[in-house]
Amino acid sequence: MVQIKDLLKTGQVVRADGRQVDEIRPVTIERNWTDAPEGSVLIQCGNTRVLCTATFTPGVPRWRRDSGLGWVTAEYSMLPRATSERTDRESIRGKVGGRTHEISRLIGRVLRGVVDMKALGENQIQIDCDVLQADGGTRTTSITGAYVALADAIEWAKKKGYVAENKKVIKDQVSAISVGVIDGTPMLDLPYIEDSHAQTDMNVAMTGSGAFIEIQGTAEGAPYTRETLNELLDLAEKGNRELQELQRKALAE
Amino acid sequence: MVQIKDLLKTGQVVRADGRQVDEIRPVTIERNWTDAPEGSVLIQCGNTRVLCTATFTPGVPRWRRDSGLGWVTAEYSMLPRATSERTDRESIRGKVGGRTHEISRLIGRVLRGVVDMKALGENQIQIDCDVLQADGGTRTTSITGAYVALADAIEWAKKKGYVAENKKVIKDQVSAISVGVIDGTPMLDLPYIEDSHAQTDMNVAMTGSGAFIEIQGTAEGAPYTRETLNELLDLAEKGNRELQELQRKALAE
Amino acid sequence: MVQIKDLLKTGQVVRADGRQVDEIRPVTIERNWTDAPEGSVLIQCGNTRVLCTATFTPGVPRWRRDSGLGWVTAEYSMLPRATSERTDRESIRGKVGGRTHEISRLIGRVLRGVVDMKALGENQIQIDCDVLQADGGTRTTSITGAYVALADAIEWAKKKGYVAENKKVIKDQVSAISVGVIDGTPMLDLPYIEDSHAQTDMNVAMTGSGAFIEIQGTAEGAPYTRETLNELLDLAEKGNRELQELQRKALAE
Amino acid sequence: MVQIKDLLKTGQVVRADGRQVDEIRPVTIERNWTDAPEGSVLIQCGNTRVLCTATFTPGVPRWRRDSGLGWVTAEYSMLPRATSERTDRESIRGKVGGRTHEISRLIGRVLRGVVDMKALGENQIQIDCDVLQADGGTRTTSITGAYVALADAIEWAKKKGYVAENKKVIKDQVSAISVGVIDGTPMLDLPYIEDSHAQTDMNVAMTGSGAFIEIQGTAEGAPYTRETLNELLDLAEKGNRELQELQRKALAE
Amino acid sequence: MVQIKDLLKTGQVVRADGRQVDEIRPVTIERNWTDAPEGSVLIQCGNTRVLCTATFTPGVPRWRRDSGLGWVTAEYSMLPRATSERTDRESIRGKVGGRTHEISRLIGRVLRGVVDMKALGENQIQIDCDVLQADGGTRTTSITGAYVALADAIEWAKKKGYVAENKKVIKDQVSAISVGVIDGTPMLDLPYIEDSHAQTDMNVAMTGSGAFIEIQGTAEGAPYTRETLNELLDLAEKGNRELQELQRKALAE
Amino acid sequence: MVQIKDLLKTGQVVRADGRQVDEIRPVTIERNWTDAPEGSVLIQCGNTRVLCTATFTPGVPRWRRDSGLGWVTAEYSMLPRATSERTDRESIRGKVGGRTHEISRLIGRVLRGVVDMKALGENQIQIDCDVLQADGGTRTTSITGAYVALADAIEWAKKKGYVAENKKVIKDQVSAISVGVIDGTPMLDLPYIEDSHAQTDMNVAMTGSGAFIEIQGTAEGAPYTRETLNELLDLAEKGNRELQELQRKALAE
Repeated sequence: MVQIKDLLKTGQVVRADGRQVDEIRPVTIERNWTDAPEGSVLIQCGNTRVLCTATFTPGVPRWRRDSGLGWVTAEYSMLPRATSERTDRESIRGKVGGRTHEISRLIGRVLRGVVDMKALGENQIQIDCDVLQADGGTRTTSITGAYVALADAIEWAKKKGYVAENKKVIKDQVSAISVGVIDGTPMLDLPYIEDSHAQTDMNVAMTGSGAFIEIQGTAEGAPYTRETLNELLDLAEKGNRELQELQRKALAE
Repeated sequence: MVQIKDLLKTGQVVRADGRQVDEIRPVTIERNWTDAPEGSVLIQCGNTRVLCTATFTPGVPRWRRDSGLGWVTAEYSMLPRATSERTDRESIRGKVGGRTHEISRLIGRVLRGVVDMKALGENQIQIDCDVLQADGGTRTTSITGAYVALADAIEWAKKKGYVAENKKVIKDQVSAISVGVIDGTPMLDLPYIEDSHAQTDMNVAMTGSGAFIEIQGTAEGAPYTRETLNELLDLAEKGNRELQELQRKALAE
Repeated sequence: MVQIKDLLKTGQVVRADGRQVDEIRPVTIERNWTDAPEGSVLIQCGNTRVLCTATFTPGVPRWRRDSGLGWVTAEYSMLPRATSERTDRESIRGKVGGRTHEISRLIGRVLRGVVDMKALGENQIQIDCDVLQADGGTRTTSITGAYVALADAIEWAKKKGYVAENKKVIKDQVSAISVGVIDGTPMLDLPYIEDSHAQTDMNVAMTGSGAFIEIQGTAEGAPYTRETLNELLDLAEKGNRELQELQRKALAE
Repeated sequence: MVQIKDLLKTGQVVRADGRQVDEIRPVTIERNWTDAPEGSVLIQCGNTRVLCTATFTPGVPRWRRDSGLGWVTAEYSMLPRATSERTDRESIRGKVGGRTHEISRLIGRVLRGVVDMKALGENQIQIDCDVLQADGGTRTTSITGAYVALADAIEWAKKKGYVAENKKVIKDQVSAISVGVIDGTPMLDLPYIEDSHAQTDMNVAMTGSGAFIEIQGTAEGAPYTRETLNELLDLAEKGNRELQELQRKALAE
Repeated sequence: MVQIKDLLKTGQVVRADGRQVDEIRPVTIERNWTDAPEGSVLIQCGNTRVLCTATFTPGVPRWRRDSGLGWVTAEYSMLPRATSERTDRESIRGKVGGRTHEISRLIGRVLRGVVDMKALGENQIQIDCDVLQADGGTRTTSITGAYVALADAIEWAKKKGYVAENKKVIKDQVSAISVGVIDGTPMLDLPYIEDSHAQTDMNVAMTGSGAFIEIQGTAEGAPYTRETLNELLDLAEKGNRELQELQRKALAE
Repeated sequence: MVQIKDLLKTGQVVRADGRQVDEIRPVTIERNWTDAPEGSVLIQCGNTRVLCTATFTPGVPRWRRDSGLGWVTAEYSMLPRATSERTDRESIRGKVGGRTHEISRLIGRVLRGVVDMKALGENQIQIDCDVLQADGGTRTTSITGAYVALADAIEWAKKKGYVAENKKVIKDQVSAISVGVIDGTPMLDLPYIEDSHAQTDMNVAMTGSGAFIEIQGTAEGAPYTRETLNELLDLAEKGNRELQELQRKALAE
């Protein structure tokens, strides 16, 4: 009997949007999408569209002063009508929800993982990822776009003299992508319709040199074996390499 | 001696961005900018860029039930880095600021002023105006864009059968523009640099038939006479007629 | 056929409380109503009763320091049972509502419009307007009363030596009144019963020299023409002149 | 050697405002001070001035339904400039402070102590005590005034037919007064200047029949003996009897 | 006819848990229950179990600086499932409830009543009382346990040299217990089942020398006479003497 | 040259607390630690001590009704003095922090991963994990303890008849443990001192059958290779198998 797993290996499983199981969605990365921020990137992965801005500020928060080290934080948010049903604004509800908190912290951690805080010096970079349209993978798309905005902000700071030109502030490139298990088949880069049916959902942030900065794999639906984990990581590596190629192209323009 | 006022009449006063005192900034209105909302408009007035979405929901809030009437509300917000300095998110601060409240209420009132609530029936439309880039006139740009999103949402509702095709839900067109007095000279459509130096700042929402829905004129800097008021209203009428022409073109596409 | 408009001109239209359309309600202004504040005024317009206090504090907020300029702010609030139905306290709900924010900002702007910040020097005046009983026109009554409290606080500061006696801190007198269109007829100083039926509602703050500091005209009910606007402004000018006469009398006592 | 205690017994100790140690401050109770509430009382004890309103609403909160019992609650608040230094509004700070909570709960408990919830039936009375001017004893003055407002609200409910005329809803009269120990001498009805120097501060709510509803005695300064407690209670009984006489007079008018 | 009061005197009234009316519940006091705090006490009174910790911090809040005086505060809280029905967390609800505020303030006041702030010097002690299991008397149990934690924290500070060894920081011992009137009978140390049926509920904090620091007696159910008050205070004195014996034993270990 | 990695294989690397790199800390699990909850477990891993309670409530939240499915949620919190420096209460700050949100969501997801919601039926289980003392691994200790409390609550529900005795509500056992890389060496079960120096920190929740429910690996310090990931997962499998043995023992008592 033919197994989905065998089809997977031959590339015969086709998804709702016509993609192969190991194929990422079309990606566009527009730099300088708005004028004010030191870095401003509109990234689109399939129908997911995120505005990532990087704000460079000389100086660091009080608890970090006189350490000689910089700081990088991130805030993630969704516009109320990024989703098919309108979501109430967190500002109106008066508090930031758990999901928002969790994703904001994730983005910040991942970016800090590739920044040399000593080379950055006592300067702060605040990343804002605002989801204008959501169709799955908003947190990984945010990371991939934010990296480009971060790189632009650091370039800006070097031109303005806040950071010495010869400092290698960014230690490595970073991108992120989601993988998941659907009907027992590991798949790459899930849109909302697939994500909501996944037994397992994993987000993988990887550096340009192929090491992991963050792996978050959740199996509310069905626990996954070590073997499946390895298949998922293989897919994630493939996807991240492709995203990193696109990041490099965008930054080269 | 030559007076600015005389130059104004001959059109000789030229502004930082090269415009005449009675000239509006370049405007673009893109419909269906995102997919999910029933109406989704990206409007750009000079460097001010606002995403206006309209969410149509069958049914009305509890206090309005069994009235046979619909309801329209609006929420305005700015992305943290829409401005030249980053502004903290209101969701993080845990409360909506006075300025945001004031503008949200203004947009809602103005749109309600052109909607026939009986024709709308017991349905609700929620307008979201998210400023992606701010360079003066964000509240008036929001109104002008929101009108187009509102019109699209009502068209959608008619196609879906929530509202009868023959109902004239929108009683009249509406747009808004800012005017102000700078160094004693009344001017039309102020960008941020002018707005912050204005002695008087006025926002005027006007219908297609030339009546006022909202006039808000503030003179923190210097009180204005009845004569100046009349000059400002003349400018606002000119600007609104031009914006309404652009709204009609966008809706005709 | 006799038009309401013609009756208006002859003063024949009579209102629920027996007033002419261009007649203000009875006004009393009591200074020093409480002991602690530097200015403390109980103002009553018809059944609307507001306690306006002015708190003078040497020094200004951090963002204003070393500017040589003073600052004036205002906060507006209603007691829960100022209204016919009890309103929940905003302190209990944990947030300030949009209407409160909007009115507080309005009062502050208007008062700042008549204060010479340089003459005030680096001192702050906080205005508190607490509505003890509400029957329409609470925001305009607040402005009219707050002006008197402000004047008293500045007198106090001069006597205490915080402000030099010869400084003209108050550039001009200011008062405010509401006007509106009811059944097509422009009317002056609307009580709650009229206000809630007005097609158009306008609040006009005017200086002693007859210039405008703030015009806020809203037409949720029916847009208004330039002609109606002019009639409303005529009424507002009449009302404000009368209120200013009463302010002067109160301050002369 | 002459002891203050001996002077106390002979009435020779005189206070800053000229009162004897066992003398209450001048009290005025004005009923119907505002029009809207079912009970509205302006009470003044010395310089402390509190507006006490009672809101009668047919029906009870959900948790109390179908019990056949009514409910009484209270909220206490101070205007920002009731005090000599301006206090920030709790609505602006976004939360109710501990002191406000504590006093609101006290007032509610004491009034519930004299209301027959069965006779009240499934109706709710909300007491609002807003301190317009504070000079010590604001919580006890609130209780004393609130009782009168409560009585008026119940009278109103009987006239409107919400409560049967023959029901004895109020089981007993109640008033409250503060006592304290200053420099070792027990004193009655402390103004702010005395209160802030008291070693012991006690608030005593007492019924018309002379029983206690609430005793709150705090000794941050110096613990008090059983003997001192008894002296304080004697003073409180005297004060409450006098306040109750004034309540009865006010209600008889 | 035999009266409950007479039975009381002969010790014949027996309670649900088999105790006499003047008998306290079994009490255990474990010091150093956790390692981190300067004082850490697990106290159990019957089924009520409270973790009381004392945090010693050199320095005082800004308003207290340069006074030469120390400061003591307390915070009380209940775990969600300390009670038979789960209570929502106040952190989730976003605000501290009135009851929590009231009790936190009570604990702080009582402890401050036995601390010599001058001897403590400019140091702060923060008491945290977290109720792990609640069965009546949580506030009095908190006080009794917190005293022991406070004593340990001061010992710690002396050993560390923050406070001179010879300073008598604690002026007197303090404990607290509840008393109440049930079916007309005054009883000592009420568990939840009794507390919820009490006509009168009183909490009494007393020093080792037998003086009162706080008396809080509430009679929502039925007002109490001076005679009953005296009986309740007799019981409270007995209970507090026994608790103080147990505190001394615990501190001597 | 001897590598730490080689020492690791021979078990020669010894840690601050004397453990081998692949050794877990001493664990105790006390069931029924408090009386009220349906499940109540005090778990101690090294010096980390967490009270885990499970509240069983018939019925589910509104959005889940008529689905035939149950629901499981979790809330995590730390007492203020669980840590060596006191942490302000989130209830006082008025909002739940990002870390708390993230961990609460993690615990809930992991437990839902082993519960058969259909077998649970329309019933809700709320897990509360309150950290009484924190020394690293509080989130994994919470999961390990919460599983036992959950099992007890389901037993309770079966005895009470809310869930049929023959339903297999719990699909599999689950526990969690932390692993991390310190100075290049992967280690098992990090206390605070190690955790704060880890280059990589990973939390692994695993079922009794050896599959993963959640992997969260963060590398703020230094990205980790696929090889290191595999070593970490090997350690985590060993640790979880040992914890699961202890869970089974505790549940067998």
